Amino acid sequence: MRIGWALLMTVMVMASTTAEQEPQLLRLMPWPESVKTVPGSGRLIVGNSFSVSVSAGGANPQLRRAVAIFLDDLRRHTGSLPLDFAFAETGKGQLQISVDRASKQVQELGEDESYSLEVTASAAILKAPSTLGAMRGLQTFLQLAQITPQGFSVPTLVIQDKPRFPWRGLMIDSSRHFTPIDVVKRNLDGMAAVKLNVFHWHLSDNQGFRVESRRFPKLHEMGSDGLYYTQEQVREIVSYARDRGIRVVPEFDMPGHSTSWFVGYPDLASGPGPYSIERKWGVFDPAMDPTRESTYKFLDEFIGEMAKLFSDEFFHIGGDEVNGKQWDANARIQQFMHSHSMKNNADLQAYFNERVQKIVAKHGKIMEGWDEILHPDLQKSIVIQSWRGQKSLADAAQQGYRGLLSSGYYLDHMDPASAHYAVDPFTGPTAGLSDTDKQKILGGEACMWAEYVSPENIDSRIWPRMAAIAERLWSPQNVTDVDSMYARIDKINSWLDAYGLTHNTARMLMLKRTADAEEVSSLHTLADAVVPVGIDGRYDLPSVKPTALTPMNRLVDAAAPETVKGRQFAALVDAFVSGKIKPGMEAEIRSTLTQWRDNDIHFRALAENSALLQEALPVSRDLSALGQAGLEALDYLDRAEKAPEDWKTQQLALTQAAMQPKAEVVLIVAAPIQKLIQASAGEAPTNLPLPKSAD
Amino acid sequence: MRIGWALLMTVMVMASTTAEQEPQLLRLMPWPESVKTVPGSGRLIVGNSFSVSVSAGGANPQLRRAVAIFLDDLRRHTGSLPLDFAFAETGKGQLQISVDRASKQVQELGEDESYSLEVTASAAILKAPSTLGAMRGLQTFLQLAQITPQGFSVPTLVIQDKPRFPWRGLMIDSSRHFTPIDVVKRNLDGMAAVKLNVFHWHLSDNQGFRVESRRFPKLHEMGSDGLYYTQEQVREIVSYARDRGIRVVPEFDMPGHSTSWFVGYPDLASGPGPYSIERKWGVFDPAMDPTRESTYKFLDEFIGEMAKLFSDEFFHIGGDEVNGKQWDANARIQQFMHSHSMKNNADLQAYFNERVQKIVAKHGKIMEGWDEILHPDLQKSIVIQSWRGQKSLADAAQQGYRGLLSSGYYLDHMDPASAHYAVDPFTGPTAGLSDTDKQKILGGEACMWAEYVSPENIDSRIWPRMAAIAERLWSPQNVTDVDSMYARIDKINSWLDAYGLTHNTARMLMLKRTADAEEVSSLHTLADAVVPVGIDGRYDLPSVKPTALTPMNRLVDAAAPETVKGRQFAALVDAFVSGKIKPGMEAEIRSTLTQWRDNDIHFRALAENSALLQEALPVSRDLSALGQAGLEALDYLDRAEKAPEDWKTQQLALTQAAMQPKAEVVLIVAAPIQKLIQASAGEAPTNLPLPKSAD
Repeated sequence: MRIGWALLMTVMVMASTTAEQEPQLLRLMPWPESVKTVPGSGRLIVGNSFSVSVSAGGANPQLRRAVAIFLDDLRRHTGSLPLDFAFAETGKGQLQISVDRASKQVQELGEDESYSLEVTASAAILKAPSTLGAMRGLQTFLQLAQITPQGFSVPTLVIQDKPRFPWRGLMIDSSRHFTPIDVVKRNLDGMAAVKLNVFHWHLSDNQGFRVESRRFPKLHEMGSDGLYYTQEQVREIVSYARDRGIRVVPEFDMPGHSTSWFVGYPDLASGPGPYSIERKWGVFDPAMDPTRESTYKFLDEFIGEMAKLFSDEFFHIGGDEVNGKQWDANARIQQFMHSHSMKNNADLQAYFNERVQKIVAKHGKIMEGWDEILHPDLQKSIVIQSWRGQKSLADAAQQGYRGLLSSGYYLDHMDPASAHYAVDPFTGPTAGLSDTDKQKILGGEACMWAEYVSPENIDSRIWPRMAAIAERLWSPQNVTDVDSMYARIDKINSWLDAYGLTHNTARMLMLKRTADAEEVSSLHTLADAVVPVGIDGRYDLPSVKPTALTPMNRLVDAAAPETVKGRQFAALVDAFVSGKIKPGMEAEIRSTLTQWRDNDIHFRALAENSALLQEALPVSRDLSALGQAGLEALDYLDRAEKAPEDWKTQQLALTQAAMQPKAEVVLIVAAPIQKLIQASAGEAPTNLPLPKSAD
Repeated sequence: MRIGWALLMTVMVMASTTAEQEPQLLRLMPWPESVKTVPGSGRLIVGNSFSVSVSAGGANPQLRRAVAIFLDDLRRHTGSLPLDFAFAETGKGQLQISVDRASKQVQELGEDESYSLEVTASAAILKAPSTLGAMRGLQTFLQLAQITPQGFSVPTLVIQDKPRFPWRGLMIDSSRHFTPIDVVKRNLDGMAAVKLNVFHWHLSDNQGFRVESRRFPKLHEMGSDGLYYTQEQVREIVSYARDRGIRVVPEFDMPGHSTSWFVGYPDLASGPGPYSIERKWGVFDPAMDPTRESTYKFLDEFIGEMAKLFSDEFFHIGGDEVNGKQWDANARIQQFMHSHSMKNNADLQAYFNERVQKIVAKHGKIMEGWDEILHPDLQKSIVIQSWRGQKSLADAAQQGYRGLLSSGYYLDHMDPASAHYAVDPFTGPTAGLSDTDKQKILGGEACMWAEYVSPENIDSRIWPRMAAIAERLWSPQNVTDVDSMYARIDKINSWLDAYGLTHNTARMLMLKRTADAEEVSSLHTLADAVVPVGIDGRYDLPSVKPTALTPMNRLVDAAAPETVKGRQFAALVDAFVSGKIKPGMEAEIRSTLTQWRDNDIHFRALAENSALLQEALPVSRDLSALGQAGLEALDYLDRAEKAPEDWKTQQLALTQAAMQPKAEVVLIVAAPIQKLIQASAGEAPTNLPLPKSAD
C-alpha cells in the first residue's frame, strides 16, 4: 500500500515538474524577489575542497563568523566533516563574497538585508551592501546546494533579493513551559535558515519568571521553579542570534500576566498576597499596582538591569489581557483613579504604560506592547504588536504608531501552513492605508504560545509552518501560490532536520513511546489522519483541564499540526470529485480508504496495552468508519449510481460526528471523505469546515 | 505489504509469549542474576506524583545526585515534565532506597555493585550496600517502567542482582574522528543504562591528539586540527561519568600510534621530522624514541599532568602495533639495542614499557596496555587488554597478569549482536584456567574504533549491539539464549532513544539526505537488506581508499550493522526450510521477496538524481535478482518439484555474486535466499558464511 502511494507521488511530482516553471522547483524558502535560472549552463560543484573567500575591503569579524557558521551548516547539510571546506584567499574561493561594510554591532531594525547571488559553473558571487545581506545570501546558497548526479551542487542562476518587511519574527513563550537553551539555539538556526530576523522572547508570565535578576533575585528564585536563564546564558543567546542576523527582543509582560513576579515581590501586586506560581491556563486577576510609586521604582531598576542585558533597541512590556478585577477590588486604587479623573481601567493602564514608557526610554529603549497598550497619550515611537488583526493595526498606523501583525500567525492554533500563508499584513483594513501609513507596518511575528508545548514537541509546532510565514514576510506580495509553497515547504521540512530540529524525529519517538511497542504502523496511520485541536479547542474541553504540570506524552502532543498524507489525500479527492481524474488516482484513493478501514483492528491491539492510547480508540473507530463510507461512495460512483438519500444522510451524520474532536485530535481526513459522499449522491462537494472553535 | 509484516510480527510475538517464561519478556538488559515475578499481584503505578525517598543513614550527595539523574531519566522515558516526580521524606516514597554506605569518591575497580529490588503494588524497595549498587538498581527500575493499561507502571517482582565481571567497558576512539562532548555524554547515558562501568577513552593516535596539555600545548595545538577537549571539558566528562557509576580510563597510545604527538614535538620520534597529522588509516612507521632520556622526561611531565586530570587509578598506554621500522632505520637506536643486549624490537619496546610503567606508578596509577605490552619484565600489577583473543588472555593470567577481553567485541567489525553475545571471556583457552587465574580476568571492553564513524553515525555503530556485550559481561554465564536476547534488545533499542542517542533517527535522516527526496521508501527497503562491510573489508578495497577527510554520507555510513528486517527474514526462512512452517509464513516470505524484486525500479528513480546513491545501483539490482530467485525457489517447493540442477547452479552463483560487497555494503539477505534455493533443489540448507574477510 505504501508502495502504491510512493508510485503515485512520483507521478504527481513529475506532473508538476512539467507544469511549473523551473525556478518554482528550487528548494528556496522564502522565495527571492527575483530568480533567473540559466538552464543547460551546468552547475557549480560543492565538493570537499569547496572554499569561500571574502573581499578584502568588506572583511570583518562579523562576516568571518558568518562564513564559519555557513561552512558548519554546509557540513551538516552534506554530511561532511569538520575539516572539509575552507576559507580561501580573496578572489580564490568557489564562493566569493563581497560586502561593502560591516553591519551595526547591535543589529537594528531596518538595516539593509539585500543581496545578489550569481552562480556560474565555476564560481558563485555573493554581493551585499552589508554583512547582514551576506548572511541572507549564504542561507539562499545553502538551500540551493543539493545532491545531484554530479555530487552536491548549486544550479547556475542569478538572484536579486531583499525582504518585503523589515521585522520578521518568531515569538517563543518560555514562561508557560520552559525552553531549554539548546532548544532555543536550534530554533534560532531554523529562523536564520528562513531569513527571520527577530526572536521575540516571552520571558515572564503568570506561570514562570525565566531570567536571572541580580537586582531582584526573588524574581527568578521564587518565580521559576528553578527553570530560568542565567544572565550568562541570555548573553550567549543574544550573541548566538546576532551571529545569525537575528535581533532578540525580550518581553516582560506587565501589568497583568505577572503572577510569577508576585511570588517573590507581593507588594508589586494590586491585591493582597501571598502568591504562588500559577499552574492553570487562562487570564488571571493579579496585576501590578499602577498607583504606587514603589512599583515604578522597582520597574525602573528592573528595566535598567534588563536593558543592559538585552542589547536590542526594543523592549516589549506585554500589556495584554488585564481583567482589572484586582484594581476594581482595591479601594485605594479606586480612590487614585477617582482623584486622577480616570474613567475606567483602560485609563489606568494607559497611565501605567505612560509611566513605564518613560522608564523604558530613560534606559535607551523603544517600548513595544500588544494591542491593548494603544492609547493616544503614548509617544508615537512605540510599536504595537497586534494579536487582534489588521483592523487594530490600521487604527494604530492612522494614529501614527508603528505596528506588526501577529493575528493569523498563532502557531498554537494548529492551523495548516496555507492558512497562515494567506494572511498578509496588507489585507483588509490595512490594504487601504496611505503609503505613509503603510510604512508604519513593520512586518509580523509568529507566536508560539507554550501552554501545550514541551521541549520535545515545540519544534513540531513551529516547523515547517513557520517557513510559510517567513515567506509571507520576506517575499514579494504576489508570491502566493499555495501549491508551490507546499512543494517547497515539504523539501524545506526535511532540509531543516540538519539543524537538529526535531519536528520530524520527535513525532516518531513520541508515538512509539505511547505504545511501547516495536511495530507501530497502525499508530502512524492513525496519527497521519489527525491533527491536534488548536489551543482554543483545548480551553473549551469540558472535562480534562490540563495544567502546567500535565505531561505532554499523548497522541495529541505527538500529532503534527498538518500531515502530508492528510493534505495529499484531500488534494486527490478534490481532483477526483472535480473530474480531473488521472490514471491510478481512484486506485490510490481506494487503497488509502481501505488502509484506514482496516487499521482499527491493528490499532486496538496496540491500544489495549497502553493507558496513553486508549483515549484514541474512538478516533480509530471513526477512521475505520470513514474509510468504509468513502469506499461505499466510490462504489456508487463506479456504478454511476446515485447514492440513496438515506444512505447519504446517514454517512454525512457519521462524518460530522467524526469531525468532532476526540482525545483532543481532529480527523482531518473526514472533510475529503464528506466530499466523496456528497459526490456519490450527485451533490456538489462543499468544503465543509471542521467543527473547530474559532480562533 | 508492511501491514502483512506487522500482522506476522504480532503472531510471532504472541507465539513466543506462550513459549517463554514470563520473566524473559521483561524489558531488562542485562538480565539480572535472579528475577522472580509474582503474576497476578498487580503493578506499581508510576504516576506524576511518583516520589523517591532515601534512607536516612545512607543518604549522601552521591546518592541524591543519582536519584536526581534517575528522576530526569524517568521524565525522559515517560514524556513527563521537569516538575513531575519528586524526592520524598525517608520511608514515604513509592520507591524507597536504602544504602549502607557511600561509594568511593573516585570509583574503584571491584567496588560492590550489587543490589536488590522488590516491587509490590504499593512500593518498591531498592537496597544496596553502596551507592554504586543503587545506581544499577535504579537503571533496572527504569527499564521496568513501561506504559500499561494502568498508565506507566512496574511489575511486581523480586530481583537480586550483581555483576559477573567487575570491568565492563566501552572504548571510544576519539582520535581518528573527534567525538564531540554531547556525543560522549549521551553514550555515557546509554552505558549507564546497560550497567557498564568503564569508559575507556582513546585520546591520541596518529590522526589526532585530543586533550589540552598545558605543559606541552603543541600536542593539542598542532596535533588536533583544533578538535580537542579542554581540561575543563575532560573534568566535566569525568564527573558526568562518575555520577553514573562509570570510571573513565584515558588512553594515550605509545610508543607507536603517535604521529600526532610528533607534529608539535618531533624530537620525541625515532625518525627525522617534520611530521604532519596522519590522514590515512593503517599502521605507520613513526614511533617514540625509547633510547633517549628526553623521551622519558617528556612522558614523566606529560603523564604527571594527565594523571591529575584523570582521577581513575588506571592509565592506558596503548602499546599496540609498533612496526619497528623507524627503530630499524635509526643507527643510534640500533647501537643502543646492541649495547643493552636487546635481541629484537620486542625487547626494546619492553624496555620502553618498563620505563613508562615506573613513570605511571610514580604518578599513582596502574598501567594498562594492549596485548603487545605483555613481557615478563613488567610488574604484575599491570592490566592487559586483549585484542588478540582468549589465548593471550590466558597466557597473561598464567603469568600473573590481570586482563580483559576485547577480541570479539570490536564494534567496527559490523558483526551482528549474536556474534558478540557468543563471545565469553571464559571460553577456549581461558575456560581451563584455575580459579585463581580466572580471578585475573577482570571482564571485557567493546571497542569503537573510529575510522568510519562520525558524530552522526557513531551511535548506530555502538547501539543496540553494545547492550548484548553488556549483558555478556554482567549477567550469569548461562544467560545465553539468543532469541531472548534479541527479543529484549529490540525493546531496549527503542528505549534508548530517550537518552538522545541517534542510532535510530540518524539512519533515517542520513538516508534521506543521500536521496534529497521526500519519498525514500525504496531506499529504506534496500538499506534494510544490507549491512556495512566491517573495517577489514574496507581496508581491503582495491580502489577507494577513504581517509580521515572523507565525508561519511554514503549508504554504507547510514546502513545499520544489523537490521531487524534482515534478521527476521532469516529466521522465517530457517523455520520454513526446516519444516517448522506456520500459517501465513510462506505468504510473508513471498511478500518480502516480491517487495525486493520490485524495488529496483523505484530505487533507480531515486539514484539517478544522486551521486551518493549511484554506487548502490548494482546492490539494488542484486536485491531484485535475489527476490526473483527466492520466488522461483518457492514456486518449485510449492509444486513439490525438485529444482533443476542447472537452475540451482545458476542461482547459487547469483547469490554468491550478490554476497560480494559492493559500495561497501553486503546484502545480508542473500544467505537465507541461498537456503531457499538449496531447499528447492532438495539439498539440506547450509548456513554458508558471507564472503567477508575474517576479523
